[in-house]
Amino acid sequence: MVIVMGPDSTPEDIDNLVELVASAGGEAYVTRGVSRTIIGLVGDVERFANLDLRAQPGVSDVLRISVPYKLVSRENNANRSVVRVGGVPIGGATTTMIAGPCAVETPEQTRAAARMARDAGASLLRGGAYKPRTSPYAFQGLGEAGLKILADVRDETGLPIVTEVVDAADVELVASYADMLQIGTRNMQNFALLRAAGEAGRPVLLKRGMNATIEEWLMAAEYIAQRGNLDIVLCERGIRTFENATRNTLDISAVPVAQQLSHLPVIVDPSHSGGKRDLVLPLSRAAVAAGADGVIVDVHPEPETALCDGPQALVDGDLAELADVVGTLSGVLGRTMAVPPEPAAV
Amino acid sequence: MVIVMGPDSTPEDIDNLVELVASAGGEAYVTRGVSRTIIGLVGDVERFANLDLRAQPGVSDVLRISVPYKLVSRENNANRSVVRVGGVPIGGATTTMIAGPCAVETPEQTRAAARMARDAGASLLRGGAYKPRTSPYAFQGLGEAGLKILADVRDETGLPIVTEVVDAADVELVASYADMLQIGTRNMQNFALLRAAGEAGRPVLLKRGMNATIEEWLMAAEYIAQRGNLDIVLCERGIRTFENATRNTLDISAVPVAQQLSHLPVIVDPSHSGGKRDLVLPLSRAAVAAGADGVIVDVHPEPETALCDGPQALVDGDLAELADVVGTLSGVLGRTMAVPPEPAAV
Amino acid sequence: MVIVMGPDSTPEDIDNLVELVASAGGEAYVTRGVSRTIIGLVGDVERFANLDLRAQPGVSDVLRISVPYKLVSRENNANRSVVRVGGVPIGGATTTMIAGPCAVETPEQTRAAARMARDAGASLLRGGAYKPRTSPYAFQGLGEAGLKILADVRDETGLPIVTEVVDAADVELVASYADMLQIGTRNMQNFALLRAAGEAGRPVLLKRGMNATIEEWLMAAEYIAQRGNLDIVLCERGIRTFENATRNTLDISAVPVAQQLSHLPVIVDPSHSGGKRDLVLPLSRAAVAAGADGVIVDVHPEPETALCDGPQALVDGDLAELADVVGTLSGVLGRTMAVPPEPAAV
Amino acid sequence: MVIVMGPDSTPEDIDNLVELVASAGGEAYVTRGVSRTIIGLVGDVERFANLDLRAQPGVSDVLRISVPYKLVSRENNANRSVVRVGGVPIGGATTTMIAGPCAVETPEQTRAAARMARDAGASLLRGGAYKPRTSPYAFQGLGEAGLKILADVRDETGLPIVTEVVDAADVELVASYADMLQIGTRNMQNFALLRAAGEAGRPVLLKRGMNATIEEWLMAAEYIAQRGNLDIVLCERGIRTFENATRNTLDISAVPVAQQLSHLPVIVDPSHSGGKRDLVLPLSRAAVAAGADGVIVDVHPEPETALCDGPQALVDGDLAELADVVGTLSGVLGRTMAVPPEPAAV
Repeated sequence: MVIVMGPDSTPEDIDNLVELVASAGGEAYVTRGVSRTIIGLVGDVERFANLDLRAQPGVSDVLRISVPYKLVSRENNANRSVVRVGGVPIGGATTTMIAGPCAVETPEQTRAAARMARDAGASLLRGGAYKPRTSPYAFQGLGEAGLKILADVRDETGLPIVTEVVDAADVELVASYADMLQIGTRNMQNFALLRAAGEAGRPVLLKRGMNATIEEWLMAAEYIAQRGNLDIVLCERGIRTFENATRNTLDISAVPVAQQLSHLPVIVDPSHSGGKRDLVLPLSRAAVAAGADGVIVDVHPEPETALCDGPQALVDGDLAELADVVGTLSGVLGRTMAVPPEPAAV
Repeated sequence: MVIVMGPDSTPEDIDNLVELVASAGGEAYVTRGVSRTIIGLVGDVERFANLDLRAQPGVSDVLRISVPYKLVSRENNANRSVVRVGGVPIGGATTTMIAGPCAVETPEQTRAAARMARDAGASLLRGGAYKPRTSPYAFQGLGEAGLKILADVRDETGLPIVTEVVDAADVELVASYADMLQIGTRNMQNFALLRAAGEAGRPVLLKRGMNATIEEWLMAAEYIAQRGNLDIVLCERGIRTFENATRNTLDISAVPVAQQLSHLPVIVDPSHSGGKRDLVLPLSRAAVAAGADGVIVDVHPEPETALCDGPQALVDGDLAELADVVGTLSGVLGRTMAVPPEPAAV
Repeated sequence: MVIVMGPDSTPEDIDNLVELVASAGGEAYVTRGVSRTIIGLVGDVERFANLDLRAQPGVSDVLRISVPYKLVSRENNANRSVVRVGGVPIGGATTTMIAGPCAVETPEQTRAAARMARDAGASLLRGGAYKPRTSPYAFQGLGEAGLKILADVRDETGLPIVTEVVDAADVELVASYADMLQIGTRNMQNFALLRAAGEAGRPVLLKRGMNATIEEWLMAAEYIAQRGNLDIVLCERGIRTFENATRNTLDISAVPVAQQLSHLPVIVDPSHSGGKRDLVLPLSRAAVAAGADGVIVDVHPEPETALCDGPQALVDGDLAELADVVGTLSGVLGRTMAVPPEPAAV
Repeated sequence: MVIVMGPDSTPEDIDNLVELVASAGGEAYVTRGVSRTIIGLVGDVERFANLDLRAQPGVSDVLRISVPYKLVSRENNANRSVVRVGGVPIGGATTTMIAGPCAVETPEQTRAAARMARDAGASLLRGGAYKPRTSPYAFQGLGEAGLKILADVRDETGLPIVTEVVDAADVELVASYADMLQIGTRNMQNFALLRAAGEAGRPVLLKRGMNATIEEWLMAAEYIAQRGNLDIVLCERGIRTFENATRNTLDISAVPVAQQLSHLPVIVDPSHSGGKRDLVLPLSRAAVAAGADGVIVDVHPEPETALCDGPQALVDGDLAELADVVGTLSGVLGRTMAVPPEPAAV
């Protein structure tokens, strides 16, 4: 059950409701969005029925939601949401391209990749400073030094930053640099991290676990939402199957299915799905055609020297073709490409 | 190893080569295509090296092929093949839409579905007279009576027929009615059926096994090719994974991957992948955008009464939208929609 | 709905019931087992309710069965079935070991493998004369010549023969040599083959499809049962998953689950599951401990020269250890090892 | 590359080696085990070759290890390890049973479950105070209050405690109560948590990720080992597949495979694999027969009121049967059941 507060509701109205729900043996989770505040109720629905919630001061609407993910469900919000990252929209009538290096390695490499990204139509910069790696002996990222490089490159190029956080203890630090926090596939059910991200005051890019059902993915988003943050973008990045011709199997159906079940934007990562440079272009076309709200791709000025995932990184020529085809297909489907902010320093 | 014969080669040239290969302890499989005859060699490559095959009469080229699927591999034919079904092309610069009922039930239902299909831009009619069903108690198809209905409807609408065959013993009968033989997902490794289809003188639509790797799929096609039939169209129809929000998981990456590995056309079945009417449109868009050479969809005049797979069948309004978007996307990608033949009887 | 006929029922009683069911718009499938005849009804259960079936001559019992697999379900027969193959029991209080070469190659190899098998406690001989192979260029088996070798070796060793059939057209021929027909994993949903096997008058070993759910496996068995043959043994042989350290993933839970749902015996193939010699022993122990009614293993006198699956074939020392541990574990669990018949020729 | 230090090596010897490796551009990770100290080297093996490591003071042996998981590999230690938890051995010639409630709910429920466990032959008590739950609205565990209940019950029953930790920030607190830290399936690649567990001074029970390959599982163990802790027990708990008759698919082959690749003990969780009470017994038998070093099972005095996973919890009668059969099978395979310590307070 979800209570939607009216635009004129006061903090006292909210406190009043939280107490009322508690008096009926339930719990109330308050989520303050940009445009509205919603209160999720947990507990015995029959008891709440006696509270006459709709008549309480400040209440605009009361919804019964049948699915287990309440706040992120389409039932809670029939309109599809738009999430803004440093001013750049994801969702709605735009298609947003996010590009950048898998890992931040040096200022030069990051700057070069960011310029490639911007030239090719990307409006957000991705890049990992904290890298979750299968092997403890693999490159684990530059940490805070990497975040500083990203912040410098943002100043130069104007591109807001999307970067991964892998431990709840690092969320505050990463959020102090990043415009958007990324939660990776291996951490989709790291619930401490989800809760911390929900309280960090930054939009969150939530990658689907490589073995997660769509319902589990939405439940993970609900952990973030429940802490008061509905600025969540879902990212399909391939699931694990018996097929080994590709790194993962891009579940393209997850785009329309997640959009039917949830109001959150859904983007696609064709680089990690296919794991091969020459699959990025056809998979990006498929993603946009299926209705994805954007794509996130790996780029690298010199893939053969990359410390991470070089074989799937796009190079200059690929990027131009990608930008061209994504723009054209978006247009056919009635969308426009998101535009990046101007650089602060220009 | 594959020997490509020249356009002027004679039957004696071919007999000569078969004997020569046998004399070296190998086996030669002759495949006569429309434009050229090729001979696949099995055995010890080192021994063949001494035969001076390239110098034999009638030989145009000799190729060493590294992959286990020889005749269907891209190494054997760098150009992508076009397969013609009753005059309708699949592959090359066209996008081909195949539509029709999951199962042939009555003349009226089949006729109505065929008209829906034709009006919506389909150029081939699908429809099952022999249905492989998980349960022995489920509707198993009308058999030959269904084939006669399909033939009548072909006369009326002009649409060539694609229909499934499930037993090697039925291939000759089905081929006497059908323009294209379909081999279904459960029979992808029914090798007796594959061999019979390879000898039937009809193009074959080979659906991917729901648990088959792309390599196994190409090996199944090789069984058909080895019997002298290279008119094969591959059809991705979803694989089985842990995700249960969809009937199967459409492996969209299989389209570009199979096209890189093989010269055969690749189409997509969005109806059986998603298993839900409202997924057919986004998945069809994704298929065309990924580069598929066509789509095959279920339609039914009254899905709620369908004896098979009603929930995924498109109805009139859906079909018009599908035709519109498939046509537009094809155009953006430089393709044109295949056009159906005129009805014989009009 | 299933009608169980009494021991004194006559053919006229059965004909009478079939007509009665037809008169109510239903269909009746008669299955004559060794100990009893059962009639499976398909159609509208409400209509049958008016027929007073229980009062008809010869009827012993009438069961409503809720699961889609009727004849093979535990609801139809609360006692677990015993299937006899050339006098050797599978099921009940025995553990049955089936062993032999993956493929019949020569009389000598088959004879040597059979003697290894018998010495090690096997009571049935497996061996493939028709081999379904992923590649058309791989060894496809000796065909009828292989069946003759098997029959000769049966005469010498006394071991009844289990051998695969891959095409409905071959069932009669194979059944004329074999004591038990094997249907392989790739053909689990080859419905024409299942029906033919159901009419062949031989017990059937039905391997689980590598991507089949347990329910689909039981539905495949129902196709055989519906043709009048309830002498079916289920064989779990591993399913396909993302894990690639083993050839397939042995689904050990399938043993107790299938035994709960069906009255048919369930055995395990540890050779094809693991795909490695050194996994056969631990997986066989696990199978017997989980309650399997037997195991079927590959053996070969010289695995390094085997034309098929050499790496998983057991050699002499392994076999003795296998026989020892399977016998001991069976004893702990209250079972005894099945004993092979004496050779005819000794 | 791994350096094994001799029993008489000094801290100075180790410091000397760490510096030497650093001087060659490498990194050295020191792991102090109970019986020996090992130093894992990361970097260019060719450079290390010039250091004459074998001749350095305190060095007993230098091993080149070919697999990516170095310290946990069988190449590093040909003997299978025994891990001691509060004095109770896991591994070697013992079979260890761990039992307890899925979640700690009340002192009474935990005490009753612990007594059931002890009576039935368990020598370690499991119980969750921190529960990772798919839904943010599900019971998340009692936290530190639950740890206190567990500690009290340990005093009463003598059973050392195994309990889960879900966040790196909680490791120190949980380790102050627990005898063994459990890392759950969803956190198998939570690398911050793995590292923290590696430094906590407690043995670790590492569950396999539900979609992790065996190699990834061993790499996760390597993260713990690299921080100086080789007291790791691997736990197979089922993987995710298309089969839905069971909660997960127990990968029984993972037991012998992991034991071949690693020297760490491997146990099995039949409760979470099957997800049903009546599968626990056959799967436990299979686990012990496959060679598992133990089993971990859910028990609950009143499963129908359990806050978590009631349907899979064993009750009294089941437990006695489990203890009986596990003891008997262990004996047949040459193992003895581990014995729990006496209660401190008795």
